[in-house]
Amino acid sequence: MKRFKLIVAYDGTNYCGWQRQPKEDTIEGELNKALFRLTGENIQVIGASRTDAGVHACGNVAVFDSETSIPGERLLFALNSILPEDIRVMDSCQVSDTFHPRYCDTRKTYEYRIQTGRTLDPTARLYSHWIPYHLDVEAMNRAGQYLVGTHDFKSFCVAKTQVKTTVRTVTAIKVWQKDIVDGIEGSDSGKETDSPQNIVIRVEGEGFLYNMVRIISGTLFKVGLHAWAPEYVQDILAGCDRTLAGETLPAKGLFLKQIEYL
Amino acid sequence: MKRFKLIVAYDGTNYCGWQRQPKEDTIEGELNKALFRLTGENIQVIGASRTDAGVHACGNVAVFDSETSIPGERLLFALNSILPEDIRVMDSCQVSDTFHPRYCDTRKTYEYRIQTGRTLDPTARLYSHWIPYHLDVEAMNRAGQYLVGTHDFKSFCVAKTQVKTTVRTVTAIKVWQKDIVDGIEGSDSGKETDSPQNIVIRVEGEGFLYNMVRIISGTLFKVGLHAWAPEYVQDILAGCDRTLAGETLPAKGLFLKQIEYL
Repeated sequence: MKRFKLIVAYDGTNYCGWQRQPKEDTIEGELNKALFRLTGENIQVIGASRTDAGVHACGNVAVFDSETSIPGERLLFALNSILPEDIRVMDSCQVSDTFHPRYCDTRKTYEYRIQTGRTLDPTARLYSHWIPYHLDVEAMNRAGQYLVGTHDFKSFCVAKTQVKTTVRTVTAIKVWQKDIVDGIEGSDSGKETDSPQNIVIRVEGEGFLYNMVRIISGTLFKVGLHAWAPEYVQDILAGCDRTLAGETLPAKGLFLKQIEYL
Repeated sequence: MKRFKLIVAYDGTNYCGWQRQPKEDTIEGELNKALFRLTGENIQVIGASRTDAGVHACGNVAVFDSETSIPGERLLFALNSILPEDIRVMDSCQVSDTFHPRYCDTRKTYEYRIQTGRTLDPTARLYSHWIPYHLDVEAMNRAGQYLVGTHDFKSFCVAKTQVKTTVRTVTAIKVWQKDIVDGIEGSDSGKETDSPQNIVIRVEGEGFLYNMVRIISGTLFKVGLHAWAPEYVQDILAGCDRTLAGETLPAKGLFLKQIEYL
């Protein structure tokens, strides 16, 4: 028996998330199906991160054991010829039999994308959260820095979460504005605050609570609107109360960018 | 009766192109439906460019006449509240009764997107043409320059096209490589030629033949592969024979970026 590791990218739009469910299409389910077709073995992959319905990934990690004779570094080609186009294996290799994608130290990088401007860009609609208001990116970035470090993130996870501790370590947060690559140049939109922004909130950490990145993004969003001062994020942390933080932004704006094994 | 101009952006994925068809969803059809709901008038918009099925746009132009009392610059908000999310009016205004989107001098800008790398990026799959081979962008750009100017583009349009003349003027062609904004950083892909490229072919002209931009892109693609020398594009032009040029690349990679009225 050999153990293999896959780097998996997907467009989460048409899936009920990673985790296999009886009647629903999921990333895990599609990978298991493809591996069965490829090897004839009843393989259940283990995912590093069980992303929610609608969340996208560039670098999730799946691990499985198999008797296959296909060399690890060739598996991606075999699997990509079977998998639907919205799920791609970006890389594959054999790993040690003791490697487990969840029970080891990792650094995960998530990105949340927000697009502003008076109208949404149709070709970005599935991959970013659109809001018509101009956001103060610099203030959002400043606010984010208060969250970096080891804190109790109770205010930044779903209220009735079933975890031993809500203390987590965020290693970096960066909020910046990308040039609009697609689209809106075509329109002659007027005032400065009309001109669209392509905002990325990057959150890097050693583990996250349920919905944590989407709640952090919703909180920084309020700062970007000048509804809250950047410093207020400290009070939200200290309060340890979900109702203090911003809303949970929609799944479609969230990307699991990569998982590093430390 | 007043005449209005709309700047229209759309994701062409789910439409049979611009032009209204009895049983199919089209951009024109959706705009007419939305305008009927908004005004109660049986309005038929006139489009500047009747893009093919699957082609995207950031700045197509639609014109229509209406008795509506809604100010031109407010129309986009009213229409966007009715239109499906994959069609957006980016801008709107009233224009002179004599303005016609097709019978006046325009400069159109198209972009064709190609993504390379050993695997396609799932979230780019609907908006770019993926090929696993590394392309020589510099050679493609050099080849493109032979097409700039006024030429007989017979080799670059569908063989049995019904036009008086196949002479057209291309004002600019630029081929460049964008940084990969999304995705593949996550994978540890190996050799230099494995590392993905995000290539844009921008073609600017005063009018195009049917499939012209997609055939130009397919021709530059062959140059990028080093199958053809950049200079060979001159022979293709001179030959006035469709079979000499490259293949017509798929619609999903094509964007109508903008239309300028001169």
